[in-house]
Amino acid sequence: MATAKRDEKAICPRAEDYARWYTDLVLRSELADYSPVAGCMVIRPNGYGLWEKMRDALDGMFKETGHRNAYFPMFIPVEFLAKEAQHVEGFAMECGVVTHSGLEADPENGGLRPKRALDSPLVLRPTSETIIWHMYGQWINSYRDLPILINQWANVVRWEMRTRLFLRTREFLWQEGHTAHATAAEAVAEATTILEVYRRFAEEYMAVPVLTGLKTEAEKFAGAVDTYTLEALTQDGRAIQAGTSHYLGQNFAKAFDVTFQTAENTRDFVYATSWGVSTRLIGALVMCHSDDKGLVLPPRLATNQVVVVPIGRKDEEKALVAPVVERLRAELKPFDVIVDSDDSKSPGFKFAEWELRGIPLRIECGRRDVEAGQLTLARRDTGEKKTIPLAGDVAAAIRGELDVMQQAMFQRALDFRAANTRTVETYDEFKEALGPEGGAGFLLAHWDGTTATEKRIQEETNATIRCLPDQFPAEPGRCIVTGEPSARRVVFARSY
Amino acid sequence: MATAKRDEKAICPRAEDYARWYTDLVLRSELADYSPVAGCMVIRPNGYGLWEKMRDALDGMFKETGHRNAYFPMFIPVEFLAKEAQHVEGFAMECGVVTHSGLEADPENGGLRPKRALDSPLVLRPTSETIIWHMYGQWINSYRDLPILINQWANVVRWEMRTRLFLRTREFLWQEGHTAHATAAEAVAEATTILEVYRRFAEEYMAVPVLTGLKTEAEKFAGAVDTYTLEALTQDGRAIQAGTSHYLGQNFAKAFDVTFQTAENTRDFVYATSWGVSTRLIGALVMCHSDDKGLVLPPRLATNQVVVVPIGRKDEEKALVAPVVERLRAELKPFDVIVDSDDSKSPGFKFAEWELRGIPLRIECGRRDVEAGQLTLARRDTGEKKTIPLAGDVAAAIRGELDVMQQAMFQRALDFRAANTRTVETYDEFKEALGPEGGAGFLLAHWDGTTATEKRIQEETNATIRCLPDQFPAEPGRCIVTGEPSARRVVFARSY
Repeated sequence: MATAKRDEKAICPRAEDYARWYTDLVLRSELADYSPVAGCMVIRPNGYGLWEKMRDALDGMFKETGHRNAYFPMFIPVEFLAKEAQHVEGFAMECGVVTHSGLEADPENGGLRPKRALDSPLVLRPTSETIIWHMYGQWINSYRDLPILINQWANVVRWEMRTRLFLRTREFLWQEGHTAHATAAEAVAEATTILEVYRRFAEEYMAVPVLTGLKTEAEKFAGAVDTYTLEALTQDGRAIQAGTSHYLGQNFAKAFDVTFQTAENTRDFVYATSWGVSTRLIGALVMCHSDDKGLVLPPRLATNQVVVVPIGRKDEEKALVAPVVERLRAELKPFDVIVDSDDSKSPGFKFAEWELRGIPLRIECGRRDVEAGQLTLARRDTGEKKTIPLAGDVAAAIRGELDVMQQAMFQRALDFRAANTRTVETYDEFKEALGPEGGAGFLLAHWDGTTATEKRIQEETNATIRCLPDQFPAEPGRCIVTGEPSARRVVFARSY
Repeated sequence: MATAKRDEKAICPRAEDYARWYTDLVLRSELADYSPVAGCMVIRPNGYGLWEKMRDALDGMFKETGHRNAYFPMFIPVEFLAKEAQHVEGFAMECGVVTHSGLEADPENGGLRPKRALDSPLVLRPTSETIIWHMYGQWINSYRDLPILINQWANVVRWEMRTRLFLRTREFLWQEGHTAHATAAEAVAEATTILEVYRRFAEEYMAVPVLTGLKTEAEKFAGAVDTYTLEALTQDGRAIQAGTSHYLGQNFAKAFDVTFQTAENTRDFVYATSWGVSTRLIGALVMCHSDDKGLVLPPRLATNQVVVVPIGRKDEEKALVAPVVERLRAELKPFDVIVDSDDSKSPGFKFAEWELRGIPLRIECGRRDVEAGQLTLARRDTGEKKTIPLAGDVAAAIRGELDVMQQAMFQRALDFRAANTRTVETYDEFKEALGPEGGAGFLLAHWDGTTATEKRIQEETNATIRCLPDQFPAEPGRCIVTGEPSARRVVFARSY
């Protein structure tokens, strides 16, 4: 069987082939599997557990900032998509299209074929601005109906040609926020509030540092006035977009004729935002932290934070260790502790399996530990071992160790980013820093602000402008390609 | 605007037109709205909040019983559906079919048309047995890989011709569990464990009593050996199926060739179950409890359990009431309390609005209340008012009142079902009890066990066999139609 064969295969080391390491790891750790449907994946329980933790954390932050969840149909009438000119241009090519209902016997090949043609084809949502703004047109009449702060957790479809597990698949899971406001200022504030929610989530939960800032005209969302982005850096030096928040101005309100009565008794079009993160975050998480042994998960997102491995197969050893293990099972419940008492596998085999799975802390408990009144703790990110006293408050010690690990993972990623962010002054320097292929970190360089120059750089180097970064002070200079004036350096990188 | 017009309209009383009452109420309380896509609905935040509470409660119970969540593609190859003969017969007619990707300009009518035909059409999952059992075939090799206990929260598509908000829509949300086992006994035990989880959820959270039991051959799931069902009774005397749990035997394992090595070193096909509940539960909840004033929600599923309405518009009244209201806002946070201080609306108007929304408890707090050292509590289900001392533990009093209300709602529904469950001995009695149309409660009657008789009764009376109930002792008799022997009475009703 295909899987059995894959299971026997080791994970390709990062240094040998980073792309293969990623795929091997996602499959071997059972985060996901390929599906029989081209371009789609199965998110297995280990991967879905991560998504649940991400969803719960984000959902809590959305609710704290006044948002509520809803659900809109996945089917979008073709004519809706056509109403906003840029939007349809951005998404038309990658739509999945439903044209029929029902199946009937197909006498020619003994199989089944679509039966009834729909009156009009339906698109599977690539994103939901159009259907949501149609509904907002029904719900909004006066400034008293504003703001509307709605989020949706849903599947979306984009018929991508080149796919990769978690990073780009034809169907994926995401959340999409869609808000409606009485003023431009309020809508811009919403877009940046969400950017900050996303930043906090990436840094405090995923332990992934992100650059934030505006996208260029060429890179922004189809239908947006402004797109704010979060850009992380993978271990192989590529940028990975971790989320976007769009200020849509009145574009969708105009396309769907959504006006409201202002407090001053005039009528105006409604201002909008939309914003989203997807299961792609799981790919980013793996790419930023994991190693050749397997997953390295930040404690705040790990489904199980601790695994206890009792050591010793002899009856007298077991008798000594068992009561301690039972105590740990009870005391460490808040950490969703796993106790691995399977006698058919050696401790070494178990250690490797749980390292592959990315459990943050391993507790080893053998005869010597019990006799010495201690437990041995091993940290997944560093491999460091230490002992803690059995007599003390074990849960508090574990909590402390997990906090240290969460913080250390973030700091390590921050240091990595600092070491892989370079300022370049000339196009030659830029090309040399990038190298012929692969990731080369973030490059800060001056750019003249034109799409023509941006496209030329992309064509010649395969690097794109990731954002106009918030994190670096504006400092005037001259474009590395044209020598034209530039108000600030922008961030370039090759990206996923 | 269509909505504004609907908003002004009162809710049709149940006695006048129950179906219209239901639709008016769902729209007016903003649980849901019609969508521009035929047969689909928008679940608005008030409705989605209910679904979130349902999901969280059920998800907790699934996890307690060892299940984990995953996500499988929504797209199903047509040939997969065809592999299980009964399954394809049951679902072929109601599939949504994706045949193309991409859109291109359509010069003939100035719009857009589907661009690239897929190599092979894809079905949008009506349920996921086929794609999941294809994957289980990759994952299962030995008895050590069993059991697999996976659940999925997802949208599904069934191209229904007659639709109704929440009860029957072309796209709906649900959970579907799919488990794999080494023995038939284990799989049957799983199916009945889940039936009990569903029963507890319906009765303890929804406060909706349910009859449980097996479906007949004619009514069981397409591809199942046995289907267990939960049947609730609406206020207009119709049965409503609240969930099903299927023992699938080896049907899907055989269709997808999924075998495993047993502990005895032989190979056998894997045994399966599947089970699901959907957003239809929201419709059942409304139909079982709500009244002419609006929603009546059981406290355990209400997003906001308490609303505080300060009374009095004069400054001196406000000064007296405000500190009490602020204290309540803090103390009642665990109940997700709403404080409605909007001065532009009268207390009576507010009371009606929150009654429409189904907030379980209303606290009125005016000058007289504060001076008397008390609060006035109004219960949504009965309309009863009582006072509680301001000096005491208000949160504890509220908790007690909510528990009493939860229990009272269940008891009322139980009494209603008892009053609307009748035993009939002859077909004439049966038809008279049913009346010419509409709901008439549950009828317990003897049936000869044949599909022919079942179909005849359905054609002549529009009543169906809801289940072979667990709740009534088997008692032999003679079929009301054919006079043939019958081992037990079965439950008939007209249904939604």
